[in-house]
Amino acid sequence: MASAALKSRIQRASMLSKVCQPQDLLHHFPNGSYIGWSGFTGVGYPKKIPTFLADHVEKNNLQGQLRYSLFVGASSGAETENRWAGLDMIERRSPHQVGKAIAKGINNGAIQFFDKHLSMFPTDLVYGFYTKDRPEGKRKLDVTVVEATDILPDGSFVPGASVGATPELVQMADKIIIEVNTSLPSFEGLHDITMTDLPPRRKPYLITACEDRIGTTSIPVDPEKVVGIVESDYQDQTGPNTPADEGSFQIAGHLIEFFEHEVNHGRLPPSLLPLQSGIGNIANAVIGGLENAKFRHLKVWTEVIQDTFLDLFDSGHLDFATATSVRFSPEGFRRFYGNWESYKDKLLLRSQSVSNSPEIIRRLGVIGMNTPVEVDLYAHANSTCVNGSRMLNGLGGSADFLRNAKYSIMHTPSARPSKTDPYGISCIVPMCTHVDQTEHDLDVVVTEQGLADVRGLSPRERARVIVAKCAHPLYQPILTEYLDFADAYCLKRGMGHEPHLLYQAFDLHRALDEHGSMLKFNGWK
Amino acid sequence: MASAALKSRIQRASMLSKVCQPQDLLHHFPNGSYIGWSGFTGVGYPKKIPTFLADHVEKNNLQGQLRYSLFVGASSGAETENRWAGLDMIERRSPHQVGKAIAKGINNGAIQFFDKHLSMFPTDLVYGFYTKDRPEGKRKLDVTVVEATDILPDGSFVPGASVGATPELVQMADKIIIEVNTSLPSFEGLHDITMTDLPPRRKPYLITACEDRIGTTSIPVDPEKVVGIVESDYQDQTGPNTPADEGSFQIAGHLIEFFEHEVNHGRLPPSLLPLQSGIGNIANAVIGGLENAKFRHLKVWTEVIQDTFLDLFDSGHLDFATATSVRFSPEGFRRFYGNWESYKDKLLLRSQSVSNSPEIIRRLGVIGMNTPVEVDLYAHANSTCVNGSRMLNGLGGSADFLRNAKYSIMHTPSARPSKTDPYGISCIVPMCTHVDQTEHDLDVVVTEQGLADVRGLSPRERARVIVAKCAHPLYQPILTEYLDFADAYCLKRGMGHEPHLLYQAFDLHRALDEHGSMLKFNGWK
Repeated sequence: MASAALKSRIQRASMLSKVCQPQDLLHHFPNGSYIGWSGFTGVGYPKKIPTFLADHVEKNNLQGQLRYSLFVGASSGAETENRWAGLDMIERRSPHQVGKAIAKGINNGAIQFFDKHLSMFPTDLVYGFYTKDRPEGKRKLDVTVVEATDILPDGSFVPGASVGATPELVQMADKIIIEVNTSLPSFEGLHDITMTDLPPRRKPYLITACEDRIGTTSIPVDPEKVVGIVESDYQDQTGPNTPADEGSFQIAGHLIEFFEHEVNHGRLPPSLLPLQSGIGNIANAVIGGLENAKFRHLKVWTEVIQDTFLDLFDSGHLDFATATSVRFSPEGFRRFYGNWESYKDKLLLRSQSVSNSPEIIRRLGVIGMNTPVEVDLYAHANSTCVNGSRMLNGLGGSADFLRNAKYSIMHTPSARPSKTDPYGISCIVPMCTHVDQTEHDLDVVVTEQGLADVRGLSPRERARVIVAKCAHPLYQPILTEYLDFADAYCLKRGMGHEPHLLYQAFDLHRALDEHGSMLKFNGWK
Repeated sequence: MASAALKSRIQRASMLSKVCQPQDLLHHFPNGSYIGWSGFTGVGYPKKIPTFLADHVEKNNLQGQLRYSLFVGASSGAETENRWAGLDMIERRSPHQVGKAIAKGINNGAIQFFDKHLSMFPTDLVYGFYTKDRPEGKRKLDVTVVEATDILPDGSFVPGASVGATPELVQMADKIIIEVNTSLPSFEGLHDITMTDLPPRRKPYLITACEDRIGTTSIPVDPEKVVGIVESDYQDQTGPNTPADEGSFQIAGHLIEFFEHEVNHGRLPPSLLPLQSGIGNIANAVIGGLENAKFRHLKVWTEVIQDTFLDLFDSGHLDFATATSVRFSPEGFRRFYGNWESYKDKLLLRSQSVSNSPEIIRRLGVIGMNTPVEVDLYAHANSTCVNGSRMLNGLGGSADFLRNAKYSIMHTPSARPSKTDPYGISCIVPMCTHVDQTEHDLDVVVTEQGLADVRGLSPRERARVIVAKCAHPLYQPILTEYLDFADAYCLKRGMGHEPHLLYQAFDLHRALDEHGSMLKFNGWK
């Protein structure tokens, strides 16, 4: 039954008898099941089973009749979870997602979604917090489906391009299905796997450098829980990289200048400290900018490794990178697999409990960089909900890093286009419509206009620096006037620590909403 | 020059020559100095020097001419920092404060105050973030004044009733002044002191239980930095405890029932997990309630230990408590000193970097409980700024614990009196006017009305549970109507993940502001 390729990846003989086809496993997925998938940021997710189930629903017109609670470390591939959402197969989802259909379902009320710190999601899962309302005796996940690139003689499996929450999803599963992907090389040796213990028996993560290993190279499973093994033969469906634009290069320039300043003043070593960088064009520009900067022996402690890190490796400036996933473009994956020997000893994938651990992020003094929806005058940031209500993708690890990094940096364009105005949206607003990062968390805000270093500043000082350095020139007078009025109103009333015009704080959002641009705003008085 | 009492506390001979009077040290305090004080939550702060300086300013009419940047772990005594604020002696203050004059100065713009996570403040200080704008060569604190109860032969000193940020304030000081308090017993043995290393040389905190020791019993100092030693002879000026009222007893009852439920379902061991409890009447009721509950062998990992913990020790149910300060009432201190032998081996004081460390709070699975200004429908909480603008005391350690605890619990009365209406303020509001704790951080909201367990719920589910369980009956219809309107408005626009009526979200606050009560609100449409 098993192909030669599959047999070569199943090194535990007793597991061979579990090889089967997706249709043999259909009965494990009754309506209402709680399901876990491996995967993180669209890599390392299962493909065969989710696709088979989607086909099954589509072919038999079962939309809305097979609905699941779906837990994945972060996002999986659009052709799986997003297709499920389109087929009304998702009842509940956590903690992060990417895809038009799934965002639509979340924002029209069809899907119950909650976003949680990615460091905390696996732990809360193991605590039983997400299965507590299930019937007694079923307070686990019914089935977890994982992608593996190898099954070792002890029955444990080697994941692919991500670890994410897979250890805990396996730990919490009543049944486990393994998709062995024979189109990928075995990733054995690329992972450092740790499981989640419960307090009071939890131990320190004894990691003091990016390259430290504290775990195993594979994820242990109870072989009796494995109900099926399926061969998978296609690769992670990633897209191309977002190219950096001029604004992102300017942001990268400001940041590199800032790092040089910190090195010159002895607050950073010349090799900097481990870098964390998010996803998107600004992140790519920053990592790209480091290729041409003077820093050497860089290290990376982050969530996701992307193509630009390959360039940084090739430049010779990056010594080591660790994350919970490698999410390359198709071209990036070709490059990675083609030069496996030169990259494999410089890369390490860990579970998201570890990659996003506050413990380690603080200890290492990580430099954390993320892109928000909006930042406000007092340095709160919105990472998730447009106009306070519409969910984009979820919190992700932004708050894990920004709360705990030595340098907590938000980078954003100063303005974005609305439908009718190229500068219709100011990313610096009087008050965030949703707060994911508080004023107590951010050290630096940077836009293409400049960099605001708000460390040690009171809110009123902070606000003036952010307007002066970061706001788009079209919005500077509007924001300055807001601050002037708010100062005048609040200080004389003895409530001027963080002056706001509370009942007008969202007037710019309202102008955008009603007139298509924040610039069409009518004034503060 | 030194009294016999003082001599008996100075075990390093060379230090005796540094004994002097406060007036001998006046020249160390020029206008504009950056000053550190020991102290945390109004205990263990220096008294003689601050009082002398205040007298000096008052006597010589120097108000506004001697202004300082003042850094203390958290609040110190009202007769020191609050008096300084009243005499316009504070230019800048961080990270926490208590006192009418200081709150007034912060809210009328006279004092630049910023509040920072208490776990992070000492680290950022050592990073040089708060002194970075000082002239080259002076990027430290000019002088740190500490209270000690003993100076050991190696020159290190034993603090009093708090550790707070004293290790780092000493670490960062150019000069050190020690007030030896001879009216207190020596606290030797009660502390576990660790200093803050800088990355990349930072190590794990090897603590896996409340009673674990990883440090020394005293704070090391460079003896050459000590410019003076002064005898101090009066005790921490604490007030009486806030007594619990009926509402707080009801909250305590709901929480104890919740803990029993969690134990019954195997999510908590019968001895619970280490407890963190804030300050105030609800916290006192909860700790008081545990005296009569069935849990045994309790342990406490918290910021501040108060009188009620003495009762819990005496009941035999509390095995061990650790914090960064013991802030007893005058009666509590008498009891503590009078039964020193029976308490001393069950108590340990650590630096706030350790007591509030995310690393340890997560590892131990702490049960964190705090009181907010307000909580909103989606479980964001405001811990600091009334109406988004007026600072109360500061963030404190609330976010250190609520972000990292296994159980993150906010307890609050459902409503508070306004000036004209006994139920004029709902503590459950549509949207918080300031967010210090995000929806991603809270597990449980509890009022005297009931307990909302929001673990694993989507925002829309969460909101209905919070209204149903926690809101005051007078406000339930108002909040339900808000949700109904917000659902209708946002869902049909495809922005309904977290429905808000953005331009009316603060209408209850406005009604309070303009008509004296949130109940005088005019409706959502």
